[in-house]
Amino acid sequence: MWEIKEIGFNKERIIHNGNKFLTGHLKLGVRGALDEYTKAEMAAVNLPLVYDRVGKLWRESVNAYNPLYTVIKVNGRTVSLLTEDPVYHEQSLNMRDASMTRLTRWLVDEVEIVVKSKRFVSLLYPRLICGYYQICANKDVDLQVLTGIDIDIWDLNGPHLENTMLEKIEGDLYVSGETCERKHKICVYKHIKAHFNADKTDIVREEEKFLSRYLLKAKKSSPVTFQYFCGVGVDEKLDLIRGCVLDVAKEGFWRHLKSHREIWNKKWKDSDVEIAGNDQVQLALRYSIYHLLLLSPSISPCSSIPARGISGQTYKGAVFWDTEIFMLPFYLNTDIESAKSIIMYRVEALKGALLKAKEYGYRGAFYAWESQEGGYDACSDYNVTDAHTNRPVRTYFKDKQIHISADVVYAINAYINHNQDMSILKEGALEVILEVARFYLDYGNYKVLSRRFEIWDVVGPDEYHERVNNNAFTNQMVKMVFESVLKCEEYFKNKNDCYFEKLIKRIAFEEDLEHIRNLVDQVFIKEPNSDGVIEQFDGYFKLRDVDIDELKSKMLHPNEYLGGNGLAGDTKIIKQADVVAMLYLFRDRFDASLMKKNWEYYEKRTEHGSTLSASMYALVACLTDNPEYAYPLFLKSATVDLTGDSKQFAGGIYIGGTHPAASGGAYMTAVYGFAGLSDQGGDLRLVPRLPADINSISFKIKKAGRQYHIFVSKEKQEITEIAID
Amino acid sequence: MWEIKEIGFNKERIIHNGNKFLTGHLKLGVRGALDEYTKAEMAAVNLPLVYDRVGKLWRESVNAYNPLYTVIKVNGRTVSLLTEDPVYHEQSLNMRDASMTRLTRWLVDEVEIVVKSKRFVSLLYPRLICGYYQICANKDVDLQVLTGIDIDIWDLNGPHLENTMLEKIEGDLYVSGETCERKHKICVYKHIKAHFNADKTDIVREEEKFLSRYLLKAKKSSPVTFQYFCGVGVDEKLDLIRGCVLDVAKEGFWRHLKSHREIWNKKWKDSDVEIAGNDQVQLALRYSIYHLLLLSPSISPCSSIPARGISGQTYKGAVFWDTEIFMLPFYLNTDIESAKSIIMYRVEALKGALLKAKEYGYRGAFYAWESQEGGYDACSDYNVTDAHTNRPVRTYFKDKQIHISADVVYAINAYINHNQDMSILKEGALEVILEVARFYLDYGNYKVLSRRFEIWDVVGPDEYHERVNNNAFTNQMVKMVFESVLKCEEYFKNKNDCYFEKLIKRIAFEEDLEHIRNLVDQVFIKEPNSDGVIEQFDGYFKLRDVDIDELKSKMLHPNEYLGGNGLAGDTKIIKQADVVAMLYLFRDRFDASLMKKNWEYYEKRTEHGSTLSASMYALVACLTDNPEYAYPLFLKSATVDLTGDSKQFAGGIYIGGTHPAASGGAYMTAVYGFAGLSDQGGDLRLVPRLPADINSISFKIKKAGRQYHIFVSKEKQEITEIAID
Repeated sequence: MWEIKEIGFNKERIIHNGNKFLTGHLKLGVRGALDEYTKAEMAAVNLPLVYDRVGKLWRESVNAYNPLYTVIKVNGRTVSLLTEDPVYHEQSLNMRDASMTRLTRWLVDEVEIVVKSKRFVSLLYPRLICGYYQICANKDVDLQVLTGIDIDIWDLNGPHLENTMLEKIEGDLYVSGETCERKHKICVYKHIKAHFNADKTDIVREEEKFLSRYLLKAKKSSPVTFQYFCGVGVDEKLDLIRGCVLDVAKEGFWRHLKSHREIWNKKWKDSDVEIAGNDQVQLALRYSIYHLLLLSPSISPCSSIPARGISGQTYKGAVFWDTEIFMLPFYLNTDIESAKSIIMYRVEALKGALLKAKEYGYRGAFYAWESQEGGYDACSDYNVTDAHTNRPVRTYFKDKQIHISADVVYAINAYINHNQDMSILKEGALEVILEVARFYLDYGNYKVLSRRFEIWDVVGPDEYHERVNNNAFTNQMVKMVFESVLKCEEYFKNKNDCYFEKLIKRIAFEEDLEHIRNLVDQVFIKEPNSDGVIEQFDGYFKLRDVDIDELKSKMLHPNEYLGGNGLAGDTKIIKQADVVAMLYLFRDRFDASLMKKNWEYYEKRTEHGSTLSASMYALVACLTDNPEYAYPLFLKSATVDLTGDSKQFAGGIYIGGTHPAASGGAYMTAVYGFAGLSDQGGDLRLVPRLPADINSISFKIKKAGRQYHIFVSKEKQEITEIAID
Repeated sequence: MWEIKEIGFNKERIIHNGNKFLTGHLKLGVRGALDEYTKAEMAAVNLPLVYDRVGKLWRESVNAYNPLYTVIKVNGRTVSLLTEDPVYHEQSLNMRDASMTRLTRWLVDEVEIVVKSKRFVSLLYPRLICGYYQICANKDVDLQVLTGIDIDIWDLNGPHLENTMLEKIEGDLYVSGETCERKHKICVYKHIKAHFNADKTDIVREEEKFLSRYLLKAKKSSPVTFQYFCGVGVDEKLDLIRGCVLDVAKEGFWRHLKSHREIWNKKWKDSDVEIAGNDQVQLALRYSIYHLLLLSPSISPCSSIPARGISGQTYKGAVFWDTEIFMLPFYLNTDIESAKSIIMYRVEALKGALLKAKEYGYRGAFYAWESQEGGYDACSDYNVTDAHTNRPVRTYFKDKQIHISADVVYAINAYINHNQDMSILKEGALEVILEVARFYLDYGNYKVLSRRFEIWDVVGPDEYHERVNNNAFTNQMVKMVFESVLKCEEYFKNKNDCYFEKLIKRIAFEEDLEHIRNLVDQVFIKEPNSDGVIEQFDGYFKLRDVDIDELKSKMLHPNEYLGGNGLAGDTKIIKQADVVAMLYLFRDRFDASLMKKNWEYYEKRTEHGSTLSASMYALVACLTDNPEYAYPLFLKSATVDLTGDSKQFAGGIYIGGTHPAASGGAYMTAVYGFAGLSDQGGDLRLVPRLPADINSISFKIKKAGRQYHIFVSKEKQEITEIAID
């Protein structure tokens, strides 16, 4: 169960498969496009966390020149999936080592031609992509191999690279350019190692492609093979990139794959979750973990994970709350370095958050809703397009979805609690907590008559309802932030450590601290109504109650946006888990009976229009002992990038790509939901709620410097400490 | 200059003329429809302040059965403007006595037929409409006269009347029915006094018309005339209505008109504003005053004036802030009983305002945005229709346009200041002030860091920008409310009157009063920026700056709504005076230089999409000594119902009708702007700023029990006390 395979060729699946067969790591994402694919098929070599802006278009991550482009001609005729229907075709992903393979057989002019190729992005040399390509015909043929660099880049809001230069360097191909805005030097170097003798070899430019061309007579049933090694550099010296490419070329594709696989083996050893009882569930969950492993931030210091991972430019290649809330738990359990990187990314982004708050007239730290380097908020005030008028629609993700700052603090607490390690506080995290608290102090409203501290004019996780007052999720989060400040104060006081006091002084927080002490218990936390349901925000209960299908039947355009002034805006229909997400995140504060009532109330009113939604409902279903309710929602999270069944458009804007938060949510559901792992003041506990399809779950977790093996079946549960390698 | 006349017949003007030639009073509005008009031509006898709701449709004022319907047949052929083009046609309004006349000449089958008719709504018997009708042919003809009651009522959200009964009572016509919701009995009684001998007389029902039919031979050039007297009753006994009709019928049309005119003469004597220099200006201003006189609330105790006056059901026949801010000044100067009625209407509506606040979760008094009887808020959450999708658009007039409560307090202060009479405080107005203050205390937000009392999530007078924070207009109004509370406290304290103290105790206001004392100076009043411009609300200055014409050129549909998520919502384009209205209302707090800067900044960004807008700009232009800028805006206000140049649709909803607030604004501009009348601590002052077209202005005002004649020309200014009749 380590292989994802798709047999047969279906043009409709090309874009989806670009996501499904994704390989790479957090510095280099290679979409699962086939060798002959171009921009039109959304082939892309994505440079995550490298951003650029063209004019007034959306700032987004940059795609490099594509060095994977390869096509063949047989007896003068192009043989490609785009021009010839195959007799057989398969594309597969080996999750063991994150390598992609394709195998295609054509019958062209009565010649059977078989192409097999394989590629992977090296984990030893993260700037390197290695490829292998083999052609075999069942007759003697005139073969032309064209392999090189496609400089016509698929961009959503590009073109990002200018001053593109094409150079031949001792038979190799070299393309360089720079980004428009910050002048990052992007270069691609391609070395081809041919295992055949060509009659003629030259380097040509065909339109936007810079190609090595080989003409040869291919003998009947005698495979023609070559390997290629591509370096993709960002602000790196040519010599370095080139040296690395040539070194690995010398080593050869297969040998390097072996070394590369060893690193992946180590990753899997710590991270895999084994499921007995249902192979499809095992495969789907493993596939979720595969995506999380692709994205391990430890590869790059202080880096974090974009919401669409490394699959391209959608969501601007930016980091959302997805990372802190839905992905961090996986890294906390399996790769603490990555977890710390996620936190430190936000510590480094504090400057940007202070600036954003200031721009809106607030003190403290208002984190970016769509965070790029340095915490720059790439979010636009217009995130969707009106399907009826084609006009941009004013949305409030950037300026009103203020829970993002608290989500960062939540993650810091999660890190500290998991690791029993407060050291990050001194590495900048305490300052983050304080500045976030200051932001909420300034944003929040004290009501003199009711003596409540209320949070008005926000967007909660359910983005369909804009500019609401007292969103239950946000208010709970703000209270948690204030509590965190006081906990930190106590911690340092108990340790007789004056760090807290000094920081308070340095950032002039004395008065704020006083306010926090006064207000922490006055933050307005909504009581459940007589049916035990917590109102999502002021006035939610008075909205129109409609059925989701009925609502959708009123859509006049398939891509129309339901939120804001759209169809859902004045109804109780919500986009995604909001109160239920709050219940999960603060699960220690609520009992199962209340959770159940809220789950039942809100689930039928939830569109699950975000892939973040299903896992929260799955988790709370488990906490209320309803794993059977959780199971389909878990599958939905785990398979979203396998099936491609996710929204591809939000009001006219393409939002495709992978969904690592759903992957993280699937992991969380397996570990905290089905296996029922919980941390009771530092002690691990298991309260398994296995659905019928799952006989047992086993996995490892690291916690506070120790590692445990956990096994849960219907009959037994075990937590066993094991030695860390 | 007392006649409004339109010569010629133009079908396109039918609906507009229904407004232009309006007659009646605040208990009975008769649209300027001609005798033969029906529902299709929006003929209506409106019952202002009598409301009804059908199902879930908008609650609106009721139209009665139409007793004016009259049509003739000449030699068997219907002769009507709707079937035959006339040779000559004129329609006119005599503003002296609010009577409407029509004169039409047709040439049909070589016969010249002239119809002349006249009607008025009695001010002696307010339930009575009197009509006169004359037909004259230049040849002997067979004439059929059909006159009766049209029971097919023009309704926007009807039908409102059910159980309709048609009865003949001693040759008279009687139709009765009841409203759906509150079962008001509506009846119409019609008595016809024919001055001719008919060959045959009967009463017939033709479709939805209940008619007296007269067949006669009309002699060449010998006029056939009749009079009719109609009683329109609301919850009144038939005997009473009938008695009144028959009494006046006995008296006769012309004699009753004379008595009626005497009352109008008295009204005009106190109210007219005489303009020398330009007859058109005189006519337009007099026409504005005519409308205000039509609407005098003194005719009905504790009544106030709907935003579309008595012209029909648009704006639901409801009372808006228009009355307090734009009309009250006229009545304060000319008819203190009417002014007091306007205030007492809101005192009576306090119950409704307390209820509305409670429904939204607030304490205190939240007045209705569209106030019907008892202060019921008829405003819908969906006031416009999306022109692209035909869906209702969520608007926030009802729940967020909270300045309405302060507008009521502003009016109370205006009444007190004008009259130097605090007695209304004990008649309920003090309780209104306190409960309004309590509402704002509860609505407003105290900011702990900046120590400011801010008002968030409101809609200001500029309704295009929804749910804004710290609207300069609203905040200033809230501060005024708090100040009013403290002034009242001081007043009663100085008088050693314990009324205040007792009321405070009775309504448990002690703690609120303490808060008001603390917060009155912390209400956030925006400072002007470095250019001297006051920001309309938080973030306004950051909105897109576009040209109004450019914006409108992007409209895809002529009726599309510009506010909210519409084209203007994210730009600096505003619907109507907002900061400038605030500057006028608080003119004692700002100097002319600041007013000028704000006028210049905002005027070019104002669509004047409401007829309330022009007069505020005109007034502030005068205060900054720019009467030439004010002049065209004044004309715009004064002529809106003459020309019909106003918006007829707001996002798909018909909003036609008369604009008494524009009439009030025109009056204000003449008196407070051009004549420059002001009240300096009880003393009247004049600072004239006459535009070139106006040589002099003269008018009377009543103030604090005295009456003054005021004359202003370029050469001299006089305030002369005169004896009150």
